[in-house]
Amino acid sequence: LDYQHVQVPFEITLWIMLASLAKIGFHLYNKLPSVVPESCLLIFVGLIMGGIIYGLNDRSPPVMDSDIFFLYLLPPIVLDAGYFMPSRPFFENIGTILLYAVVGTVWNVFGIGFSLYGICQVKSFRLQDVSLLHNLLFGSLIAAVDPVAVLAVFEEIHVNEKLHILVFGESLLNDAVTVVLYKLFRSFCEMPTIKSVDVFAGIGKFFVVGLGGVLVGLSFGFTAAFTTRFTKDIRVIEPLFVFLYSYLSYLTAEMFHLSGIVAIISCAMGMKRYVEANISLKSHTTVKYFMKMWSSVSDTLIFIFLGVSTIGENHEWNWPYICFTVIFCLVWRALGVLVLTFFVNRFHVNTITSKDQFIIAYGGLRGAICFSLVFLLPDFHRKKLFIAATTVVILFTVFVQGMTIRPLVDLLAVKRKRESAPTVGEQIHIRFLDHLLAGIEDISGHWGQYYWKDKLEYFNSKYLQKILLREYDQPKSSIVLLYEKLERKHAMELAQAGQLGHGLAHPSFLCSAFLCSSSDRTVITDQKLEDTPNPDVLDNMQEILARNLYRIRRTGPAYNRHTLPGDSEPAERAKELLILRHKGL
Amino acid sequence: LDYQHVQVPFEITLWIMLASLAKIGFHLYNKLPSVVPESCLLIFVGLIMGGIIYGLNDRSPPVMDSDIFFLYLLPPIVLDAGYFMPSRPFFENIGTILLYAVVGTVWNVFGIGFSLYGICQVKSFRLQDVSLLHNLLFGSLIAAVDPVAVLAVFEEIHVNEKLHILVFGESLLNDAVTVVLYKLFRSFCEMPTIKSVDVFAGIGKFFVVGLGGVLVGLSFGFTAAFTTRFTKDIRVIEPLFVFLYSYLSYLTAEMFHLSGIVAIISCAMGMKRYVEANISLKSHTTVKYFMKMWSSVSDTLIFIFLGVSTIGENHEWNWPYICFTVIFCLVWRALGVLVLTFFVNRFHVNTITSKDQFIIAYGGLRGAICFSLVFLLPDFHRKKLFIAATTVVILFTVFVQGMTIRPLVDLLAVKRKRESAPTVGEQIHIRFLDHLLAGIEDISGHWGQYYWKDKLEYFNSKYLQKILLREYDQPKSSIVLLYEKLERKHAMELAQAGQLGHGLAHPSFLCSAFLCSSSDRTVITDQKLEDTPNPDVLDNMQEILARNLYRIRRTGPAYNRHTLPGDSEPAERAKELLILRHKGL
Repeated sequence: LDYQHVQVPFEITLWIMLASLAKIGFHLYNKLPSVVPESCLLIFVGLIMGGIIYGLNDRSPPVMDSDIFFLYLLPPIVLDAGYFMPSRPFFENIGTILLYAVVGTVWNVFGIGFSLYGICQVKSFRLQDVSLLHNLLFGSLIAAVDPVAVLAVFEEIHVNEKLHILVFGESLLNDAVTVVLYKLFRSFCEMPTIKSVDVFAGIGKFFVVGLGGVLVGLSFGFTAAFTTRFTKDIRVIEPLFVFLYSYLSYLTAEMFHLSGIVAIISCAMGMKRYVEANISLKSHTTVKYFMKMWSSVSDTLIFIFLGVSTIGENHEWNWPYICFTVIFCLVWRALGVLVLTFFVNRFHVNTITSKDQFIIAYGGLRGAICFSLVFLLPDFHRKKLFIAATTVVILFTVFVQGMTIRPLVDLLAVKRKRESAPTVGEQIHIRFLDHLLAGIEDISGHWGQYYWKDKLEYFNSKYLQKILLREYDQPKSSIVLLYEKLERKHAMELAQAGQLGHGLAHPSFLCSAFLCSSSDRTVITDQKLEDTPNPDVLDNMQEILARNLYRIRRTGPAYNRHTLPGDSEPAERAKELLILRHKGL
Repeated sequence: LDYQHVQVPFEITLWIMLASLAKIGFHLYNKLPSVVPESCLLIFVGLIMGGIIYGLNDRSPPVMDSDIFFLYLLPPIVLDAGYFMPSRPFFENIGTILLYAVVGTVWNVFGIGFSLYGICQVKSFRLQDVSLLHNLLFGSLIAAVDPVAVLAVFEEIHVNEKLHILVFGESLLNDAVTVVLYKLFRSFCEMPTIKSVDVFAGIGKFFVVGLGGVLVGLSFGFTAAFTTRFTKDIRVIEPLFVFLYSYLSYLTAEMFHLSGIVAIISCAMGMKRYVEANISLKSHTTVKYFMKMWSSVSDTLIFIFLGVSTIGENHEWNWPYICFTVIFCLVWRALGVLVLTFFVNRFHVNTITSKDQFIIAYGGLRGAICFSLVFLLPDFHRKKLFIAATTVVILFTVFVQGMTIRPLVDLLAVKRKRESAPTVGEQIHIRFLDHLLAGIEDISGHWGQYYWKDKLEYFNSKYLQKILLREYDQPKSSIVLLYEKLERKHAMELAQAGQLGHGLAHPSFLCSAFLCSSSDRTVITDQKLEDTPNPDVLDNMQEILARNLYRIRRTGPAYNRHTLPGDSEPAERAKELLILRHKGL
């Protein structure tokens, strides 16, 4: 027996196997996952595993290594989140999301940090040795909402798209703030004195970390799209590039101390539409399925490890500190959401209702990121207290909030996600409204969301598509693509039901009936039927439909009042806009 | 800049990226891959890379780590090979393959070992310090044909299926022999004296290693199939189990010093048909594509690393030893193939032609397995000589033989693979012949290949399917499955061509024409057309077809002369067979 030789891969495989089997186990008993979120069950399995290891070895089970978490477990989940991010609601609410993610997180960090420092001043709690900086450091790691935990719970409760994207987008984008504040306070803790210049450098650093992440991500994303232009002869390695480039973007960002999460999300969102157009359908199925599979496994492993790591002797128990941490986390988040939403609602027509606000505040779950960060803290004498407090906050949010949020959503009758996909008609109208609003914004000289979206779309079709797409001379409208997709799906369903001859014959039946009546009831021979122009007519109809749908989009950008369709140059239009604006002022 | 933190994943990702980009690069210039095999190009890239690293650092570039090769790079390739192994030609030629793999490899090992020992006795070559055991050890690692190299070359030259499976099957199954002989000679080298009992133990060990591998593989394979019975609610992790269980089978086999390659191949072949039936279509696409992708990347990395590792100061050059190694490898393989084929041809109707024999002998490429094994040798003073000889043999076989085999196949007009897939008619006839031959074998009391195949099929449908398949009460004949697959493919093609209404309308057109003529040219209203029994008729036809095709198979095992269809019990039949045999004798 040569165990040492295969130990590393063997144990990794066994852990993954355990996680997958646990997942299967939960779903065997159907009622369980509908009551308790999977994340809770997984943590529970982890707790049992940890207990067994602890009992057998009589020492603390191994804690989740922060490096393993940040380098191997987190990227697949974030990649999956970024790749399947619904871009429309995300960009529609980007302002609100950024406000929650940046201002809200800073608010929480300082709120929790200062109030815990206040608690530490109470003599009877015996916490006077915890300095303000340490409290702020703890606040910076405990304040951030965790994307993995949020995803695990919100995917199951099916709230409406806007609410989901607000909480989930916040949990992703607050990474930049967390990275900066955590590193700032950690370095402050080790500095003898703090100058005001350091504080300003910290504020500046935030922009570097966030925007740098976006830049790194987008450049890798476009490189990935460009690479897939050349994979026509070796379809089999196409999916690889999606994973390689996004992982490289994450690692590069981490290497330069930028926000890896922001980088991988920008990368995934940047490359998605070009990669999808370049690679084959089967490659795309592989990418999608493998991404889902991988993130699902990572997610499972994280929650199990969370459970395992909880068991052991890493904790220092101090009732007041731990209880007040939980309370402050709840209170400051609720206050933050209330205040920020007040400002957001003043500038928006679609306001965030008070029910939504409650769910946003209540959905601020903490998870494995906090946990990994607290273990990464430099050694100091109260580290174990911080670990205990973090563990309790995570378990409290995941178990109590995670398990009660579904009944609360039912009770409050929060607007749910619509179950059906938008019809083609709806899609056409949405697109039409977009163009209309972009036109109105253009004419009125208001450079709003639609204006920029349109500009981006123009830039995309004019330059990016030509560079990044393999067949850029035949761009297809998204509606035609949707139609093709629906037709393909329909064909698949029919083929699987074994009714290929049945359902599809209907339109042609109608056509042939039409032919029958129009040909004045002449004898229809087999020969004649095969010669009917019917299929060609259908083809023509499809072609006309496709071309016209495309033309709508093509002529879209040329809605300017003062130019004839087709002869508007972006530079000229920009000039005209400036003139319009000046007149308006 | 914090490079240390991300170094390991970053460098791995970069190597994979380099390999993938090199692959894309070759295919950009279309003519290159048709002349030079990809493996040669990749080794060449590796040589350049190695040269650059050597030039920059002024020390030998890192050699491919044997552990990395055996634990991470080899399994995906073997898994892919096993999963997509054409089982019919493999089992039809299993006897020949085993003869080549076991006897042929032993022949080569001892042939090369003893003749090199003879060379070492020539005083002027200055090789007298290389003992017989060391030569045999060297023979055991250099004799084995490499599956990775064979696959890389034979996938491009498209020889007929039988020839391909003979060479490729040998290269896979000789692993058991190589493992045993290599470990045997290595332990002999370290023993002071060798007793005859050790030699016999070695022979016994071969069976343990080979059959143990099969056993480990099959048990993991069936467990995998059993697990996928329960994944209905979480389709997304289905593909994972295929990879996890096969990797575990490989690691477990390696852990017990059994043949990992044999284990993973048995696992893949054992689980394939059950897993395919249990998992969803999209999961299966993911499994297939990801397996191909992964093996393709592993393959690429192996050849690049081979090139990189060649550069450096690991070599001791000795002209006679190296030249004679190459010559002996060629000569002994050619002799072995000739002698073994002579015996094989005496027992087979489909003989192996002399052209085929030449290609089998010439296709005996060596690759990365030899290379990894030679680095795993215990340190002794002529190790560098062995490394040099191994490198030369690998480069010679991959470059000279690999590049000339395609022109030779053209020149000799070796029978090629048929390009078109067998039609449904052919499939039905093949299956019919199988049943016929099984019946003839049964009646004549000859327990041949078809007899055992039929028994296995019976055991499978009676027990295995019930345990391993999710919906075992509705077994579908493979022909019905094929029909469904073709229909699905057809639907997909039509949908992609946007002609869904066109091609598929034909049968219904014919039917409606029939209806038109039969209803004596009455007016066909829309209402009436929708009420036509046409779709039902089609459904009925499909059902009858499916049921009857299945019945053919179902009644297959009951062809015994002495029993009425349906009432034959396997035990009774076995008894009858014994009686028949006794009478025959």
